Amino acid sequence: MLNFDFHNPTRIIFGRDSHREIGPLIKPHAVKVLLHYGGSSIKKSGLYDAVIASLNQSKLDFIELGGVVPNPRLSLVHEGIALCKREGVDLILAVGGGSVIDSAKAIAMGVYYAGDVWEIYEQGKPITAALPVATILTIPAAGSESSNSSVITNEAKQMKLGYGSPLLRPLLSIMNPELFFTLPKDQIANGVADMMSHIFERYFTNTLQTDLTDGLCETTLKTIMKNALLVSGDPHNYDAWCQVGFGGTVAHNDILGLGRAQDWACHGMEHELSAIYDVAHGAGLAVLTPAWMQYVYQANINMFVQFAVNIMGVAGSYRAPDAIVLEGIARLRQFFKKLGLPATLSELGINESKLELMAKKATGAAYGAEHPIGGLKKLYWQDVLEIYKLAK
Amino acid sequence: MLNFDFHNPTRIIFGRDSHREIGPLIKPHAVKVLLHYGGSSIKKSGLYDAVIASLNQSKLDFIELGGVVPNPRLSLVHEGIALCKREGVDLILAVGGGSVIDSAKAIAMGVYYAGDVWEIYEQGKPITAALPVATILTIPAAGSESSNSSVITNEAKQMKLGYGSPLLRPLLSIMNPELFFTLPKDQIANGVADMMSHIFERYFTNTLQTDLTDGLCETTLKTIMKNALLVSGDPHNYDAWCQVGFGGTVAHNDILGLGRAQDWACHGMEHELSAIYDVAHGAGLAVLTPAWMQYVYQANINMFVQFAVNIMGVAGSYRAPDAIVLEGIARLRQFFKKLGLPATLSELGINESKLELMAKKATGAAYGAEHPIGGLKKLYWQDVLEIYKLAK
Repeated sequence: MLNFDFHNPTRIIFGRDSHREIGPLIKPHAVKVLLHYGGSSIKKSGLYDAVIASLNQSKLDFIELGGVVPNPRLSLVHEGIALCKREGVDLILAVGGGSVIDSAKAIAMGVYYAGDVWEIYEQGKPITAALPVATILTIPAAGSESSNSSVITNEAKQMKLGYGSPLLRPLLSIMNPELFFTLPKDQIANGVADMMSHIFERYFTNTLQTDLTDGLCETTLKTIMKNALLVSGDPHNYDAWCQVGFGGTVAHNDILGLGRAQDWACHGMEHELSAIYDVAHGAGLAVLTPAWMQYVYQANINMFVQFAVNIMGVAGSYRAPDAIVLEGIARLRQFFKKLGLPATLSELGINESKLELMAKKATGAAYGAEHPIGGLKKLYWQDVLEIYKLAK
Repeated sequence: MLNFDFHNPTRIIFGRDSHREIGPLIKPHAVKVLLHYGGSSIKKSGLYDAVIASLNQSKLDFIELGGVVPNPRLSLVHEGIALCKREGVDLILAVGGGSVIDSAKAIAMGVYYAGDVWEIYEQGKPITAALPVATILTIPAAGSESSNSSVITNEAKQMKLGYGSPLLRPLLSIMNPELFFTLPKDQIANGVADMMSHIFERYFTNTLQTDLTDGLCETTLKTIMKNALLVSGDPHNYDAWCQVGFGGTVAHNDILGLGRAQDWACHGMEHELSAIYDVAHGAGLAVLTPAWMQYVYQANINMFVQFAVNIMGVAGSYRAPDAIVLEGIARLRQFFKKLGLPATLSELGINESKLELMAKKATGAAYGAEHPIGGLKKLYWQDVLEIYKLAK
């Protein structure tokens, strides 16, 4: 086990009707609020009205910025930064999924950053301050409600980049699983694939002596998978949503990866798909993850045997470990299929034309400075290209 | 699953040599530090010198208060409060186990409390402020390094009472498992029994639909038990200590109990043993927990079947659930025995003379206001007496 430094001060308020408490919860921290959200779904569902009512009841002054889209855009972030500066906003309330929260985080640090906020993502510039962000989660997936990271798409440059800082952990996040009842099946599936990937990225490691976090990863994954099938079949299953929803938070609040070298190759490879083809992040991950497993498993076959046995429930002869691993991967593909997720790049509308470009962008080779990605097995652009091809 | 509100902002710095960073870690938060500790063990081990060196290097002004004993005493807490007020201390650094940390927390809130700090414990008085507490943990057990609670013994009144407040979570805690290498076998065992009990108190519940936290409890317990036997056999096993040590933090940082009704009867019953007979908390818990299980299991037999199967590895016919549960309890007793823990009150030097008194104190009946204890099954003083008798 490796040394670590863990600090997650985000407060989680969980349960039925919890969103109605947003006014009193943020009142001690805010004078002027930016209410940030996506499209019309929160208006249709009544959530928007409930939030406004609570803000008004707490006599909170607020302005609004809607229009966040999946793979949230830098242009809207720029708009939000200008708005916050002009209006003297001192807290951003993100009502939505990971895209809205990530957009809010970008605005929150952009307000205090002298240059273009994109430099922070592109050059990994350190930040020293950010506005506090509060969230009401409507799509369990990205884990951004308690994570230290934000992923933004620069649509002009066709680049999707992530950035992490302790300053980006939300002040507080509200999770009411009832808000998930109206999610369409594909968004449920994408969200589940995303949260599973957050665990896989931490789970697959060459670090040894990690009993505790191994077990925490395995049980969180199994819980999410079991309950994901339940909510996919019945989106009004509150109890199952509790497990999936809070599972998505645990998946990305960093506790599962403590003391482990982590991987993150699949996220890197997927960001290229989303940046160019604007595919849903979770759908991209569902396509790439089994292909990645197939490509890398021999680099640490015991880790993948553990995955197959402890998570996918494979039984068999340990004297034929490849067969165990391949069965584990096959079961993962079947699980994704059951959720209605795509299995190939072509199902995502991605042909071969840009695979090499994406492989070179993912590893930095396209920018003249290749940095192999992946903790369990280092992947150069040729490796990434092979994985993309396996996922065709 | 129940609604919950979770907020644990304690920063955990974990790993080899991490204690040497204490000066720079607290420097931004402190001008004058109270260094609080127990007996001579931290001086013998060299930890005291390393801490002093780091504080001096960071040019931190500090004063000292040693002398904390297991079941930490109110009298020393009073002394610490007076000292902090007189010297203008603005941060308490607790170097030790749970007793030292709990004593530090009591001083931290006592500084801001107008009356006697004991009123907070005895009357559950709300607190509005506390000094920040930083810790360097030397005994993994109590989980106080990231918990919101403190337990203090009023030696004059022979009362041991706990109090919890968000203001009592430490600012930061350092855990270097190398510091555990010199622990004697009985302290290892007591600590393991304590952390296991922290999980049991959360795990045993009548709340349904708790897949995620069920699994997190089960895997944390199994990890602690497996690795406890390793460190008991070889106290220099760093990797096993990592699992036990961080397991003890996870056991009591509150994540395992989110959304569950909790029990806490065993802790309540044990505090009476410690208050009168000054026994080690963990040893008392090891004696009482199996007796409690035996007494209450029929109130929720399915919960106890799950315990026996998922934690203790019992296999058998589910058509004879009592047999499965009793085998699970028997295995728990065997496990405690392997660690060298006592199995009966008489091994703790406790005879029958005060069982009734303790049962009445544990439930408040001795003070004229009985409040049954325990979430899974409500226990009145007669029930507690039966459990004490089962543990004779």
